[in-house]
Amino acid sequence: MSSTEPPRSTPPTGNVQLPLGQRTVDWSTHAGRPAVELIDQTALPDVERLLRLTTVDEVVDAIQRLAVRGAPAIGVAGGLGVALAAVTISDPAARDAAVAALRDARPTAVNLARAVDRVAAVLPDGPQRTLAEALAIRDEEIASSDSMAAYGVDLIGELCGAEPRLLTHCNTGGLATVTGGTALGVVFALHRAGRLGGVVASETRPLLQGARLTTWELGRAQIPFRVAVDGAGPFLIARGEVDAVIIGADRICANGDVVNKIGSYAHALGAARAGVPFVVVAPESTVDRQTPDGGAVEIEDRGSAELAPNLPAANPAFDVTPFDLVTAVVTDRRVVRFAAGQTWDDIPLGPLRSLS
Amino acid sequence: MSSTEPPRSTPPTGNVQLPLGQRTVDWSTHAGRPAVELIDQTALPDVERLLRLTTVDEVVDAIQRLAVRGAPAIGVAGGLGVALAAVTISDPAARDAAVAALRDARPTAVNLARAVDRVAAVLPDGPQRTLAEALAIRDEEIASSDSMAAYGVDLIGELCGAEPRLLTHCNTGGLATVTGGTALGVVFALHRAGRLGGVVASETRPLLQGARLTTWELGRAQIPFRVAVDGAGPFLIARGEVDAVIIGADRICANGDVVNKIGSYAHALGAARAGVPFVVVAPESTVDRQTPDGGAVEIEDRGSAELAPNLPAANPAFDVTPFDLVTAVVTDRRVVRFAAGQTWDDIPLGPLRSLS
Repeated sequence: MSSTEPPRSTPPTGNVQLPLGQRTVDWSTHAGRPAVELIDQTALPDVERLLRLTTVDEVVDAIQRLAVRGAPAIGVAGGLGVALAAVTISDPAARDAAVAALRDARPTAVNLARAVDRVAAVLPDGPQRTLAEALAIRDEEIASSDSMAAYGVDLIGELCGAEPRLLTHCNTGGLATVTGGTALGVVFALHRAGRLGGVVASETRPLLQGARLTTWELGRAQIPFRVAVDGAGPFLIARGEVDAVIIGADRICANGDVVNKIGSYAHALGAARAGVPFVVVAPESTVDRQTPDGGAVEIEDRGSAELAPNLPAANPAFDVTPFDLVTAVVTDRRVVRFAAGQTWDDIPLGPLRSLS
Repeated sequence: MSSTEPPRSTPPTGNVQLPLGQRTVDWSTHAGRPAVELIDQTALPDVERLLRLTTVDEVVDAIQRLAVRGAPAIGVAGGLGVALAAVTISDPAARDAAVAALRDARPTAVNLARAVDRVAAVLPDGPQRTLAEALAIRDEEIASSDSMAAYGVDLIGELCGAEPRLLTHCNTGGLATVTGGTALGVVFALHRAGRLGGVVASETRPLLQGARLTTWELGRAQIPFRVAVDGAGPFLIARGEVDAVIIGADRICANGDVVNKIGSYAHALGAARAGVPFVVVAPESTVDRQTPDGGAVEIEDRGSAELAPNLPAANPAFDVTPFDLVTAVVTDRRVVRFAAGQTWDDIPLGPLRSLS
């Protein structure tokens, strides 16, 4: 590399023991240098390390290669990326291009474009105001996780009674948000309350977010679990080993269709056939009433490389669970029972709640 | 190893180019030494090699670690294993123990126990008669594959019209039988007739029989395909990319419940929701009218090691697709439409057919 070339990538920290409360993504001014700091989720569970990203290009790259993933977390990363652009890029055209790159880094989760747009809207007010807006999104997601856990614990208690055995897919814990989680946050809260009967973590091919990340988080929280291949979900449900399916979402449409990690729809079909609840937990920031239904959502196809290199592949990263299979959507402000015929309009926003 | 110890394992051949017509499992007297010879399916697709198994222990081991798999193929391997016992073991008690070990090597596919019992029944008539019975099973499975292809091509044509795009799961080609195949044999025959629109091969976790073995067979036959994660099946069907699902079976019960590789049931749910046919192709040797339904079948759990070592796992190797989701079962002798209310008794055995 020539000495005139800008540093393309900040070296990650080594293998550190991440503290239990470590935020998945945050703003950092370590050594006086502004950065987006995040847990490198591609390295888990073998290596625990933080990345300090000091350029927008690095943030875009981290989002695209899934070093940070999970709809709320990439929303926060995108918002902080805009703040980083405000702080580090003075040329307006270059800054606009950086914002556009952040917005387009991944297409499916609504949180990313929404957070980028929201923070970019205050760019004219200067870097300080821009950073404040990005930090507000971060703080709202932290509060959202707490509130979803409160609503979710009550709903699961109502639907399943004492000590339900839950099946979850992909990773929806602290690693998918800032801290806390969506669906897995409800699982953690049930466990803390002594009201959890067990967890099946679906491994979530091709990138194994369930087998790598969810089991890492469950292990840290000392929650007993079993991991299963994705294709086993419907059979474990049919065999009576699961009392409810609980998952997150990357986008929830106006009609209640849920766009989430590929494999979610199969679990929903299994739950419907067996008559067990299928519960989706996601913040209001994931709700997209501008998109009528799942058919209108661009589903990212991630190609062969991460699935079976050298073979032609169909690799949609997400699928659509039709609203009639969704027993309930739990957000940070309400519970909407789509399978029972409710719509967003039937249930007004309620208060943010807290378990802590 | 002391020189008095019997050779535990015959070294495999190196990386050879297996000819297109290579039988998956067969009897061999290579170098004057009786053996069960089989393609080492754990090494594919990277290494093509044959194993020559000269002891019953080696045959049991090969079945258990899936060097040979697929219900018809392990039936033939089990039958040839009994012939090997007849030839190599003179002590009756030791021979009975060898037969029992073969019979119990894997519990779910009915073909294994059935073939072992059938060949063991003629053990009193001597090694030559025993070998003849085992070879008869081998030849019957070869003829069965040919006949299933004939019945299957007609049925798929009737159900799907011209050039259907098919989704298949696990491996049901020549590697699952002796040569030809069950479900994948129908795919090959459609291709040869110029009547195939495309194939999606479901990767089939945890051991990737779809991504490793089915794609290897499709590539050798120069059939275009795409590989997909198991969880994507129902979504690809919902999105209109699949005209029918076509799979094999390890056991089909009296009521038409189909026991097959884990993940099959999810594809069946997806097919039913989308209204596309779900077709099961398996020889009559896989039909088990002694077992009333899927709930009565012992489902092998293969533990953590092959899924996520060091993590607790739920790893059922098979699942049960209820008969009402099965559009049709195609055997080598008939087509039974369970979802339409037909039973085995409604459709008498027809002739063995041939495409060749």
